[in-house]
Amino acid sequence: MSSIVLYMWMSLDGFIAGPEDGPEQGLGRGGERLHQALALDDGADPASIRTADVVSAQVLAEAMDTGAVLTGRRTFDHGGRWNGDHHDGVPIFVLTRSIPDEPAPGRARWVTDVHEAAALARNAAGDRDVLLHGAEAARAVLDAGELDEMSLQIVPVLLGQGRRLFEDMPGEHVELDRVRVLDDPEVLHTRYRVRKADDREGPR
Amino acid sequence: MSSIVLYMWMSLDGFIAGPEDGPEQGLGRGGERLHQALALDDGADPASIRTADVVSAQVLAEAMDTGAVLTGRRTFDHGGRWNGDHHDGVPIFVLTRSIPDEPAPGRARWVTDVHEAAALARNAAGDRDVLLHGAEAARAVLDAGELDEMSLQIVPVLLGQGRRLFEDMPGEHVELDRVRVLDDPEVLHTRYRVRKADDREGPR
Repeated sequence: MSSIVLYMWMSLDGFIAGPEDGPEQGLGRGGERLHQALALDDGADPASIRTADVVSAQVLAEAMDTGAVLTGRRTFDHGGRWNGDHHDGVPIFVLTRSIPDEPAPGRARWVTDVHEAAALARNAAGDRDVLLHGAEAARAVLDAGELDEMSLQIVPVLLGQGRRLFEDMPGEHVELDRVRVLDDPEVLHTRYRVRKADDREGPR
Repeated sequence: MSSIVLYMWMSLDGFIAGPEDGPEQGLGRGGERLHQALALDDGADPASIRTADVVSAQVLAEAMDTGAVLTGRRTFDHGGRWNGDHHDGVPIFVLTRSIPDEPAPGRARWVTDVHEAAALARNAAGDRDVLLHGAEAARAVLDAGELDEMSLQIVPVLLGQGRRLFEDMPGEHVELDRVRVLDDPEVLHTRYRVRKADDREGPR
């Protein structure tokens, strides 16, 4: 079955964007540091990303080889809704609290239920993985037990302030199994598999 | 010159203790998960730690080969003040906002100024490193430009809640250089060198 995989570039202190991120500044103030190895500008077309090194290129190629996108509404909107095409015209499922009046552009569609969104994305991806986008969506998908893997690129910087990937989480432990660590002199490319609730040990 | 090195076992989501950490429960609720590879009980004598694997043992041996300890007051108190001897009778410098009425036990002494504490610890350590203890102290030492290296053991678990290593930091970026990553099937042992302020690039 298709796996739902979160791809994130994160500072060592856990931030995926600097402060004051918004539509004009998707990575927040100073947050472009996180994508430095990708030579990616805020708002650039994801399909046109050029990477500064081979390992980042490999990880990015994996992300772009996914068969569907599952994203949070905020990330979708901040990214200019990708004009309805994130990469290769694969289907995009946008988690939103309420369905907007306007139709979603291109291959995108609105979904309000996280389990439904996960099922639709897995089905659409076929034998490929699902690319999961956005911190809030990631937490919702994790909390629903639908997150399979996390590909976290740990960037050697402390941002100090900004938007965290892991914030306002429930206190239940989530055990992870390391799938791989890729050697890159700058960014530490980690990949973890999320153990499902049956296997989890909670706090005392 | 002696380097001041922070040693920490941290969950992937950035916590170094679970919720409600205190004198009776130094690692907080469920936080003992972080030291699982060390087979270390809360409040155990640090010198008696036995490790569950070779790489953790190596990192721990490095920490215990330091020539002085620089610690925050909270960590010192929660650890039962180590009866005045953290390891091998090396000098202990305890950062505290105000000097308590009682003398510090054993080889420990109170210090209120972070630069003075760093200088005393470096001097006492001679040609060995200084072991830095405690999240709050780590932030103070980092902020003062006195932190040289961070040895962070990233444990494959999300705690969700607890005490973060990096919290309430100023927004200035701190650039890091990766010194090494040690291969361990469970814990990811990273070591970073902190670039000094002269070399730093701040946010826009």
